[in-house]
Amino acid sequence: MATQAAFVVKFPQQLARPSRVQGRPVPPAQVGIAVTRGSPGNKAVAAAAAPPRGVRCRAGGLIEPDGGKLVELVAPEEGGRRAALQREAAALPHRVRLGRVDTEWVHVLSEGWASPLRGFMRENEFLQALHFNAVRGDDGTMVNMSVPIVLAVDDAQRRAILASGATSVALVDDHDRPVAVLSDIEIYKHNKEERIARTWGTTARGLPYVDEAITNAGDWLIGGDLEVIEPIKYNDGLDQYRLSPAQLREEFARRNADAVFAFQLRNPVHNGHALLMTDTRRRLLEMGYKNPVLLLHPLGGFTKADDVPLSVRMKQHEKVLEEGVLNPESTVVAIFPSPMHYAGPTEVQWHAKARINAGANFYIVGRDPAGMGHPIEKRDLYDADHGKKVLSMAPGLERLNILPFKVAAYDRKHNKMNFFDPSRKEDFLFISGTKMRGLAKNRESPPDGFMCPGGWKVLVEYYDSLTPPEDSPKLREAVAA
Amino acid sequence: MATQAAFVVKFPQQLARPSRVQGRPVPPAQVGIAVTRGSPGNKAVAAAAAPPRGVRCRAGGLIEPDGGKLVELVAPEEGGRRAALQREAAALPHRVRLGRVDTEWVHVLSEGWASPLRGFMRENEFLQALHFNAVRGDDGTMVNMSVPIVLAVDDAQRRAILASGATSVALVDDHDRPVAVLSDIEIYKHNKEERIARTWGTTARGLPYVDEAITNAGDWLIGGDLEVIEPIKYNDGLDQYRLSPAQLREEFARRNADAVFAFQLRNPVHNGHALLMTDTRRRLLEMGYKNPVLLLHPLGGFTKADDVPLSVRMKQHEKVLEEGVLNPESTVVAIFPSPMHYAGPTEVQWHAKARINAGANFYIVGRDPAGMGHPIEKRDLYDADHGKKVLSMAPGLERLNILPFKVAAYDRKHNKMNFFDPSRKEDFLFISGTKMRGLAKNRESPPDGFMCPGGWKVLVEYYDSLTPPEDSPKLREAVAA
Repeated sequence: MATQAAFVVKFPQQLARPSRVQGRPVPPAQVGIAVTRGSPGNKAVAAAAAPPRGVRCRAGGLIEPDGGKLVELVAPEEGGRRAALQREAAALPHRVRLGRVDTEWVHVLSEGWASPLRGFMRENEFLQALHFNAVRGDDGTMVNMSVPIVLAVDDAQRRAILASGATSVALVDDHDRPVAVLSDIEIYKHNKEERIARTWGTTARGLPYVDEAITNAGDWLIGGDLEVIEPIKYNDGLDQYRLSPAQLREEFARRNADAVFAFQLRNPVHNGHALLMTDTRRRLLEMGYKNPVLLLHPLGGFTKADDVPLSVRMKQHEKVLEEGVLNPESTVVAIFPSPMHYAGPTEVQWHAKARINAGANFYIVGRDPAGMGHPIEKRDLYDADHGKKVLSMAPGLERLNILPFKVAAYDRKHNKMNFFDPSRKEDFLFISGTKMRGLAKNRESPPDGFMCPGGWKVLVEYYDSLTPPEDSPKLREAVAA
Repeated sequence: MATQAAFVVKFPQQLARPSRVQGRPVPPAQVGIAVTRGSPGNKAVAAAAAPPRGVRCRAGGLIEPDGGKLVELVAPEEGGRRAALQREAAALPHRVRLGRVDTEWVHVLSEGWASPLRGFMRENEFLQALHFNAVRGDDGTMVNMSVPIVLAVDDAQRRAILASGATSVALVDDHDRPVAVLSDIEIYKHNKEERIARTWGTTARGLPYVDEAITNAGDWLIGGDLEVIEPIKYNDGLDQYRLSPAQLREEFARRNADAVFAFQLRNPVHNGHALLMTDTRRRLLEMGYKNPVLLLHPLGGFTKADDVPLSVRMKQHEKVLEEGVLNPESTVVAIFPSPMHYAGPTEVQWHAKARINAGANFYIVGRDPAGMGHPIEKRDLYDADHGKKVLSMAPGLERLNILPFKVAAYDRKHNKMNFFDPSRKEDFLFISGTKMRGLAKNRESPPDGFMCPGGWKVLVEYYDSLTPPEDSPKLREAVAA
């Protein structure tokens, strides 16, 4: 088996881990059992084990959210605030209609995934995100924030809002129903070229998020403080998986987690992932943690057209748990509501930062995270190692333990997924997402042990529904061949 | 006269200035008189005046260089190190030839303008510069570093170096004479598209620095520790103006400066600049400083073809001092050896950070610093306010006092340059660089008091030398008209 890489990414040679982070001395790493919050069946347990070396977590509780307090922007159910806000929104003269991706950002902001952001970015935040991948908090410390979370308006809207002197606008859905109010607004130029160049490191046409949410968006951005009338729901049968950071924190506390390790994925889950997650838990136990819990956290927002849809991926996740590939006792499956940027090293910081806010103090980072092929050149858009490197050096993520993804591949000698062993590399078969989709499209079976049978069935059924054989002569041929 | 903007840029609303910066409490602002270093004629004077509010400077000396110690990478004259390094370089099997811009970077690095960098960036530093505009120092603190300082090699060079297992290469000039040794080297991919997009916020063709130093450069970058055999000289009659940060610090100390305010420019100096600099000194005196010294610091490296050459600009600077427009007692004119990126908000950070290393604790920032027209669209490449905003929020520049440039224009009522007064805006004439060049090209006189007569003469003589009337019928017509 391959020599295991250092478990926690060390700061590179020239970058000793600071002993003081953002003005606060780094507390000596310590194992703490989460104090339960409002779950009477659980008792807080004092720290017991010796501190694992080089690993940091908050003693006696989950990692603190960025900015110290989880931001929640949904009007409280009690006290009539929702009805009042609804009336307030309905009475506002200006309405900005939310597109699909905008709504996902309202969702993200409303639950505090982007804490300490309290709404769509004003220009100062936007510029800091673009230039520094971090914004300065009220106390002067840097908080990681690598992707712009912004809302566009067009020329006519801007002129009307400015002419009226309005300081608030209603955000409405595609039936013109108020969803939220944005107040203390600021309108500033949406320089799309600069935004795209600084976020993706390219301006080539064909970036999925750009096509979906930027190219046809307005030339102005409107920032402000957000207050959302009701929790965002999608009514797609998956809302029960959409746990907010507060709900996740409550769940981790309920389970007495003393370490939470997050795994982001947007592709079908297979046994290589499961191997990695199981192995990570084993190693955290070896380090002295008593109850490391996995946050298995598929991304649920916008994805590009050829990615496997969320509904299919969620069915696969269910199978993985049903068939015991992962242990439900130590696994929380939930949906991360963010849209996908495919912005590689820039985006992986967002993926990690958001999970801190949900209580994760360990983050598993893979090869080429959030990467994709270059939209017009025959190469990957990002260097496969840059995501991990950038993440390990990112401002505002010093508190997070980065776990490098060990490469798993199909081991033909043992007929199962295994960590790649370069000493017998001829035994290993790498099954990329493209290859996996090709197999499923062709109704071929994957090698035994590549994916749990139920998970594979779900995938094949999806492709069946997508391209019925009668519509796809090529595929029929391929299947017949 | 226009209401004067706040003298020191406040952190924007949501960004209170930290009371602790990078782990160190911010010392209460205090006026200190520089302790002289090796200049026996001067006495250190204890702090006397009341501390100016909201302004920070190191008590009892100049501002510290980034990283705490000025990096100097020229082999010392004493002890035979130069000869030894010369022999070492000559014996190295691999030689990388320095282009014009590369040599300017060797110069910049060798004198510590980029402290704490000790050579061309390795990949970790390159990625941090691109993504965060800052690199983490040995102690974990962030040091501003917004432009990549890198050296390219091509495929063949890389293969040869890797094949030989070499850990050092010689850097040579265009006559193959060794200039420096780069040791403990690392070679990594030069993704030009990503570098350009993240540095300039556009990938449009026609960016001057890209055309000069990136497009035809190799596809790999080589980083390492630099040691330079001899101080870089240009033998162009201007070397006496090329003071290193150490020399500037010595000069400021010799003059007992208790504040140093830097002014970067790459355009001809005119009386609007002089007004601003004189006014800045007056205000620093009002704030309680006893001897604020101006570092008038024209950029001396690569500039685009239609910028006025350094030799002409330096002659103008001489005239400004000769004719008493600026007071030579409180002004140090020197050349900043960096090449120009024209990268707006990204580059202005570099311009400011380098001046900290030279001892400046105040930096004057103008409208659209380091900006230019978009290379293919009819608009400015950057928002005119972004440079100032980004600079005021940049990581690693918290110690620097940013002075917003007040807008000066030609006041037709008083026949001189004056700060713009919006209450009588019809009196003011804005003379842009383009307009100024047009006047000089046409041999027209500028309005009285726009520029000192000697300075204008230098400019006209330059254009005379460039486009003798017989070669330029259009210009002849324009002049005749």
